[in-house]
Amino acid sequence: MKDYPIEVQLSTERKEKPDFHNLEFGRNFTDHMFLMDYTEGKGWHDPRIVPYQPITLDPAAVIFHYGQTVFEGLKAYQTADEQIFLFRPNKNFERLNRSLERLCMPQIDEELALSALKQLINVDRNWVPNVEGTSLYIRPFVISTEAHLGVSPSLTYQFIIILSPVGAYYKEGINPVKIAVETEYTRAVKGGTGAAKTAGNYASGLKAQEVAEDAGYSQVLWLDGKEHKYIEEVGSMNVFFKINGEVVTPELNGSILAGITRDSIINLLKHWNVPVTERKLSMDELVQASKEGKLEEAFGAGTAAVISPIGELFYKEEKLVVNNGETGELTRKLYDELTGIQNNKVDDPFGWRVLV
Amino acid sequence: MKDYPIEVQLSTERKEKPDFHNLEFGRNFTDHMFLMDYTEGKGWHDPRIVPYQPITLDPAAVIFHYGQTVFEGLKAYQTADEQIFLFRPNKNFERLNRSLERLCMPQIDEELALSALKQLINVDRNWVPNVEGTSLYIRPFVISTEAHLGVSPSLTYQFIIILSPVGAYYKEGINPVKIAVETEYTRAVKGGTGAAKTAGNYASGLKAQEVAEDAGYSQVLWLDGKEHKYIEEVGSMNVFFKINGEVVTPELNGSILAGITRDSIINLLKHWNVPVTERKLSMDELVQASKEGKLEEAFGAGTAAVISPIGELFYKEEKLVVNNGETGELTRKLYDELTGIQNNKVDDPFGWRVLV
Repeated sequence: MKDYPIEVQLSTERKEKPDFHNLEFGRNFTDHMFLMDYTEGKGWHDPRIVPYQPITLDPAAVIFHYGQTVFEGLKAYQTADEQIFLFRPNKNFERLNRSLERLCMPQIDEELALSALKQLINVDRNWVPNVEGTSLYIRPFVISTEAHLGVSPSLTYQFIIILSPVGAYYKEGINPVKIAVETEYTRAVKGGTGAAKTAGNYASGLKAQEVAEDAGYSQVLWLDGKEHKYIEEVGSMNVFFKINGEVVTPELNGSILAGITRDSIINLLKHWNVPVTERKLSMDELVQASKEGKLEEAFGAGTAAVISPIGELFYKEEKLVVNNGETGELTRKLYDELTGIQNNKVDDPFGWRVLV
Repeated sequence: MKDYPIEVQLSTERKEKPDFHNLEFGRNFTDHMFLMDYTEGKGWHDPRIVPYQPITLDPAAVIFHYGQTVFEGLKAYQTADEQIFLFRPNKNFERLNRSLERLCMPQIDEELALSALKQLINVDRNWVPNVEGTSLYIRPFVISTEAHLGVSPSLTYQFIIILSPVGAYYKEGINPVKIAVETEYTRAVKGGTGAAKTAGNYASGLKAQEVAEDAGYSQVLWLDGKEHKYIEEVGSMNVFFKINGEVVTPELNGSILAGITRDSIINLLKHWNVPVTERKLSMDELVQASKEGKLEEAFGAGTAAVISPIGELFYKEEKLVVNNGETGELTRKLYDELTGIQNNKVDDPFGWRVLV
């Protein structure tokens, strides 16, 4: 990798660190952040590491009005011998560029971004938690900063990386959760931005999530926006089902995010010779499989939670209980293997770990 | 109206005003802005008018990541005798509350918002342009400000109003524009956020707009997200067609914004006894009407542009020319009447003008 010169301005004051045994998700941030500016005609410039600080923008900045923004989420893990590993970071910066393209935003140099991230983590090295189940959550994002109320792409942007030491996404651990199948609201549709990691997808999902929580469910299972028939995602994760010995996940159809945990799971299953298929999967098929006792396991998959087992699905007044509401055997094995690779506790035949 | 106590901190420095004869849309902002904060458990507090200034937010603020934000757009007009009128502002604050509800954000007091707006305009009264065709564009918006990367509604918000003296939205005036019918990308779908005025809808439309512009078109005509068959909006405006003597606009189906200009046009047409219908309208029907010589006029309608005549539609390799590419008679009459009411040049039988 090329060595990218990045200006580093160290913080003169260091924050008190939170208790690494009791971390909430995405509430504590490290002492520094990475910043880089884009100006039309000049390109990306001034990559720099600076003390973690507020962002100051004109009230007319495009981000506030038209939501032109994309983000990524990945993690770094500290091992017992104080090494720090990233998990498939190249995939995140590749996807960031695909998201940027969809939102009419300028491409970033993926190698520079990875180099910047490593340098930032090194500066805040003692913020990477080393307690079982913890990690350093990394949030790269790009915001549109031009002060202009016309609806058109911004001429200036800022690329930012912030770091947050986190515990498990779900405080309850990987215990199975109850999911409501969403039959009214829509997350995304073909031709929209569902395959991009952009703010609007998450804003539009808040309402369904609120309704589901009020009814006692943890998340919603999203169906397609066209017919409300085919399964797409769960909450802000990809979703997998084990049906009659075969693992099935919805195919990438343009409205589903190409998750990196999703891709890793598919690779692991193939490596283990477990049948895995990416295809259309309807709720009707799932209900039928459940009735025939063939719906064996179900789980969500994403960077924040890694794996989140599904114990029950509520759909049209019916409850589909999965594996007696317990974490499935394969689900548990996938969680152990993925977190094992991430934490350098097991072999990594895929070359997914990247040393910082 | 109740008198709402709003703290006013006047700017000690005044900006140089732009040339009111040569205003771009949404690039110049007045000396002051309105701000109000929301804190969970405390409600909205500290309404205040302050010098126009940057917004300072934590990099982890919800707005930057999950796009939880809504906005409004309305205008104030200065008459020859130096009166200033708003156009149906209550409708905007009503819609703001509907948008807030969809995005899981706290409701605002509509009367307080209108009172605040009037006070703000009075403070910046000499920024309201008085040149023919100009107005003061008003942008109320609410952003989510909590520093938290979990995907859930923010616990803190800021309500902001900024003001921008503007000329016509289209520099070319109300000359007819060429429109590309969008057959790939989607703006919104039932169950999504299309009926709310929220950032993500606009971000998702940028790509189609870029493709259309590269092909020589001004805007795109959006079709429904389910079948790409029925007409929804044009660019960021509602759309009307005059077909065989009847004015038709797509019915509010959950994915179309309930435009205030749209509503005003429907009311005007009814007042004039011109047949007007809100219903589903397919591209097939439009193509057929065009072939039979019955597609008489077409125009977009929204606050920014008021009325934007459509001279040509490009759809599946075919060009549908409307009224020989010229502004239709009824289109022109609607523009004249609407801007006449807004500028206090004609009677206002509907009580739409609100004196500041």
